[in-house]
Amino acid sequence: MGRESDTQDVLGASMTPSHPMEPAAEPMSAAQLTAAVIRRLDATPDPRLREVMTSLIRHLHGFVTDVHLNGDEWLAAIRFLTATGQISDDRRQEFILLSDTLGVSMLVDVLAEPSSPGAAGFATESTVLGPFYAAGSPEREYGASIVERPSGELAAYTGRVTDTDGNPIADATLDVWQNADDMLYAVQNPDAPPDNLRGVFRTRPDGSFAFLGVRPTEYPIPDDGPVGGLLARTGRHPWRPAHIHVIVSAPGYQSVATHIFDAGSKYLTSDAVFAVKASLVRTFERHEPGTEPVPDGVPPGEAWYSLTHEFRLSPARVHGASQ
Amino acid sequence: MGRESDTQDVLGASMTPSHPMEPAAEPMSAAQLTAAVIRRLDATPDPRLREVMTSLIRHLHGFVTDVHLNGDEWLAAIRFLTATGQISDDRRQEFILLSDTLGVSMLVDVLAEPSSPGAAGFATESTVLGPFYAAGSPEREYGASIVERPSGELAAYTGRVTDTDGNPIADATLDVWQNADDMLYAVQNPDAPPDNLRGVFRTRPDGSFAFLGVRPTEYPIPDDGPVGGLLARTGRHPWRPAHIHVIVSAPGYQSVATHIFDAGSKYLTSDAVFAVKASLVRTFERHEPGTEPVPDGVPPGEAWYSLTHEFRLSPARVHGASQ
Repeated sequence: MGRESDTQDVLGASMTPSHPMEPAAEPMSAAQLTAAVIRRLDATPDPRLREVMTSLIRHLHGFVTDVHLNGDEWLAAIRFLTATGQISDDRRQEFILLSDTLGVSMLVDVLAEPSSPGAAGFATESTVLGPFYAAGSPEREYGASIVERPSGELAAYTGRVTDTDGNPIADATLDVWQNADDMLYAVQNPDAPPDNLRGVFRTRPDGSFAFLGVRPTEYPIPDDGPVGGLLARTGRHPWRPAHIHVIVSAPGYQSVATHIFDAGSKYLTSDAVFAVKASLVRTFERHEPGTEPVPDGVPPGEAWYSLTHEFRLSPARVHGASQ
Repeated sequence: MGRESDTQDVLGASMTPSHPMEPAAEPMSAAQLTAAVIRRLDATPDPRLREVMTSLIRHLHGFVTDVHLNGDEWLAAIRFLTATGQISDDRRQEFILLSDTLGVSMLVDVLAEPSSPGAAGFATESTVLGPFYAAGSPEREYGASIVERPSGELAAYTGRVTDTDGNPIADATLDVWQNADDMLYAVQNPDAPPDNLRGVFRTRPDGSFAFLGVRPTEYPIPDDGPVGGLLARTGRHPWRPAHIHVIVSAPGYQSVATHIFDAGSKYLTSDAVFAVKASLVRTFERHEPGTEPVPDGVPPGEAWYSLTHEFRLSPARVHGASQ
């Protein structure tokens, strides 16, 4: 279907394969070639795939044409992409890292959220999931600690989950994970307890949650692979501002994968993955030892931090309704 | 340098990391994010890399924004690219195949050749090298055969290598390779002699060359991987029109990697890799047995083909001169 019938191609409509060709005076232009590649998508059965591929060809060819990419640069790109695939495995996803560092992951996030200014009446803003999420964190009790070995300065996280009008949501789930002060997540560190700094919590009837974690620590994204090389060659650092990850979900509401960023982090304006949204930045309050009652799990004589945060969820989209 | 100084970022100029952030009313827009990613390239030391990356970000973000790429589609793309890297090895380069089938390899070729209409006074046009070139083909005598086992209908290739004014070039090198009628190149086929249908020839003082090969056979590009899956989902076939590969080079001249396409091939207007240029299409002449003297290597009583082709080379570019 359509394979032998596309007689109009890069050679022009006059070409008939059964005739011998004489040398033509007209060279192929970049624009003709791009048009020919796009025409070749005509038989794509799925209209969405055809739309996506057509735009991809237009922009990919536009990029190559605009910069007049040469053969050496093309080969460097082929090698870069191949290495990016080959360093990826069960524990490392270098293409997600590439997407993150080029701002593509965040762009997909921004496009998906039509209007979420993070102000009253709006849901909590999402941000990138990141490559270190692992399902299956242990369910923990209200107020319990996720700190299974020394991992930094202790921090008590409290707050509520509500709907966009501020009404509490009972039995909402918070799936939280954060890195330790050695800058590693448990999934990256074979020496750490596998559930260190991970846990699933549920809100009480008044929508409240509480758990003990650590104050977030800045860390570099893995920069020993192709993506790290690209960051170095473009004069960029690999650091992420200090943050903790949370996925908040509840029946009847849209789940949100988000961060709480530490307002004291120096990388807030230069996050290697562009994931900072102003509405997600919060100040951790420091408490000196002995000045007030301490949360469960904080040893006497140790300073600690506290942070209070409210997560607001939108109603679930009705399946089949326009968005 | 410049890492901590880029205070204007996706959060806007007003953000100072040492102050706690209040929820902002303004969501991040796609355009703001794209601008922030491009600003992050400011410290790139190599101006060419900065130019290339800036255009890449602009087009990559333009693509994602134009099609409003969603999270599922993004993840499908991540998986596709990862699989494309992981199926590649010493003998298979799936990213080159992807570049070929998206017309990018040919676009780089077209952009590199400012004006080569293939007519008198111009050099022979180039086309894609393809993934099956292997250095180290055996040097063979004028008129020798590259056919080391039955591989199709025999064809005598003759012609000349000249400069763009038609003056013969002596001792020019022709590195030729072609697939057999089982549709495989020797490098793909562990059962074939490794030098089957491959050879390096030199022109005589009058610029002439001659060798015995086979009439080219159409073949599909490897379509059992991610690229084949994409072709299938976009309604495209994987076939290349019948052709033979030649790299022609001579001291003092620009080398050209090109094909001779068989004018009788039905895929001339739908080459899976868009490599056909009209000036490279030639008619193979059929000779019935017993009607005329046969070339060396053609058994009596067998039909054979002949093809005459002239390769024209441009003078080498002077190093450092503008192109």
